[in-house]
Amino acid sequence: MFKLIAKDKEARTGILKTAHKEVETPFFMPVATKTAVKYLDPRDLEEIGINAIISNAFVLSLRPGLKTIKKAKGIHNFMNYKGAIFTDSGGFQKIKDSFYIKSSDKGIQLKSPFDGKKVILTPKLCMKIQNTLSSDVAMVIDEMPLPNQTRKEVELAVERTHKWAKECLKHHKNKKQLIFGIAQGGLFPDLREKSAKFISSLKFDGVAFGGLAIGEPEQKTYKMINSQVKHFPENKVRYLMGVGSPRQLINAIAAGADCFDSTFPTQNARHATLFTSKGKLQIKNSKYQNDLNPIDKNCDCYVCKNYTRSHIRHLLKMKEANGLRYATYHNIYFINNLMKQVRAAIKQGRFNKLRKEFLKKYK
Amino acid sequence: MFKLIAKDKEARTGILKTAHKEVETPFFMPVATKTAVKYLDPRDLEEIGINAIISNAFVLSLRPGLKTIKKAKGIHNFMNYKGAIFTDSGGFQKIKDSFYIKSSDKGIQLKSPFDGKKVILTPKLCMKIQNTLSSDVAMVIDEMPLPNQTRKEVELAVERTHKWAKECLKHHKNKKQLIFGIAQGGLFPDLREKSAKFISSLKFDGVAFGGLAIGEPEQKTYKMINSQVKHFPENKVRYLMGVGSPRQLINAIAAGADCFDSTFPTQNARHATLFTSKGKLQIKNSKYQNDLNPIDKNCDCYVCKNYTRSHIRHLLKMKEANGLRYATYHNIYFINNLMKQVRAAIKQGRFNKLRKEFLKKYK
Repeated sequence: MFKLIAKDKEARTGILKTAHKEVETPFFMPVATKTAVKYLDPRDLEEIGINAIISNAFVLSLRPGLKTIKKAKGIHNFMNYKGAIFTDSGGFQKIKDSFYIKSSDKGIQLKSPFDGKKVILTPKLCMKIQNTLSSDVAMVIDEMPLPNQTRKEVELAVERTHKWAKECLKHHKNKKQLIFGIAQGGLFPDLREKSAKFISSLKFDGVAFGGLAIGEPEQKTYKMINSQVKHFPENKVRYLMGVGSPRQLINAIAAGADCFDSTFPTQNARHATLFTSKGKLQIKNSKYQNDLNPIDKNCDCYVCKNYTRSHIRHLLKMKEANGLRYATYHNIYFINNLMKQVRAAIKQGRFNKLRKEFLKKYK
Repeated sequence: MFKLIAKDKEARTGILKTAHKEVETPFFMPVATKTAVKYLDPRDLEEIGINAIISNAFVLSLRPGLKTIKKAKGIHNFMNYKGAIFTDSGGFQKIKDSFYIKSSDKGIQLKSPFDGKKVILTPKLCMKIQNTLSSDVAMVIDEMPLPNQTRKEVELAVERTHKWAKECLKHHKNKKQLIFGIAQGGLFPDLREKSAKFISSLKFDGVAFGGLAIGEPEQKTYKMINSQVKHFPENKVRYLMGVGSPRQLINAIAAGADCFDSTFPTQNARHATLFTSKGKLQIKNSKYQNDLNPIDKNCDCYVCKNYTRSHIRHLLKMKEANGLRYATYHNIYFINNLMKQVRAAIKQGRFNKLRKEFLKKYK
């Protein structure tokens, strides 16, 4: 459950209690779709100070399959991670052609990218999967409207999302597991409001902004957050799904969001874009060829304490696994450290100053 | 330099003193061609107990280039590894079509796989590169005969190898760096003997068996080792290049070899073949799907202490980097631990018993 500790205007800090870990908010979750954050093992995550990650329930139900994870007594044991684990329902797979077939009132019809097998992901099945995985936080299945859908289509998606939210609550049986609702509404502020109010009225342990940061202009994202956040209860944690760029994180926290996940920092790392206290750094740039400085002089991470820009640049240019590992490690450390600084600033009433300074480097 | 500590029949244990590390023999070196052992960083290597690795001088002279490594004051600083670093000359690139053009008395003409640039790798250039890299041990450039070459061709290769060996000694200028000679001779025992005698007569710090384990029948490999080893001096370390399978390692140690390198354990790991105290284990086999045991119950490595067969199998099937990392870590730990056991057994005069037991599992 969530305990609010301090507010600085709309920005909040608090503690989310889960079965495996108490996690201070705001926090960012690296993505471990298949029970692994790419290039970081659980020991790395612990060393970095990551207290929560998110996996994908539907993908895990296909591979390794529920039987295997049940045999290991849940996802924590299976992968040997001691922090909090969220599981996304799989509804987000809608944006991937390799998974999505069609939606109906019953659920979302998906196909396995491994063997083509078709499955209708209903609220009941979605809860059964997550109850079995025994993640700390289960996400409901929702009908996410795609960016260019009409108002009529988005209205239908909101109706389905609400119907499924109620059904998920009914079928949620794992008492150690929290369950979060997801509000939708596309890019229509009134539908966003309506959905926020409805989801807030149900007995969820946390609430989420769904279907954002999927290609819409960034100002629209903040507008949609603002139209929903005021209808979300103060005493529930607010999860903005799919956001992980440094700028969007700090702006969303300013708007009142508490928790985040995204492949953005890890994907950027693999594409040699590194986050530093002075802004983004394109490590493959030839000016770093003989640069013996760490990625970021102001960073205390294992990578910055041990390896130079020159070495990391070489490894990434050579596509060496160690280069991908160092880059990923640093970017996740940077985002996690940003969250730490943000929490301290909120407690001390200087969040907006921190944000203003930070945005100079991340326009 | 090398200090012999104990012998058990032909098997030896001793200490090789290098500028950065004293390394107990017999030892195995993981391959770090481009300054990185695939999926293991220097901290992992230290944790495993690896005291020496081998990199590739010619490849490093192309990327990142000597200027970059010189700027970092040598390869140790560049990659931040504190153990001993051997560098191979690049002569072995002969077996790779992406590198090799032709050989002449002057040297080996190679092309860069990065930009097609042609380079004649002469003994002088080969030494200049390795002197600049400042590795602990430089290897001479040699002319390695290919497996199906005629006696005439192999005789020519041996002549060139000997000529280049003398030239390498002449051009070797880095006083902190050891230099090892390489004996060739194809699959002709008398040429092998001749080459061993000649290389032993020069002022090298160590001697190597070259051009073995490149496709010839395994019994031929041992026959060639036997024909050379008796002509190698007792007080010089003996390096069998390119050997890394558990069986070949233990048999070569029995024949009197002291040090080894190979991509065999790391490549096997990436292909999901894991070494255990009970023999090889094909982790992708479906019988391991729900197996909650470690890779090897008798192994104390980080991976065996933390992750199950079930989890590692899943990660490898999903091509996740963490799976490749765990498999690589375990295989290198296994080989390193085998070397430890071998050293203790030689000191205690029970090496042949250990070898006999071991070969039951690795036929």
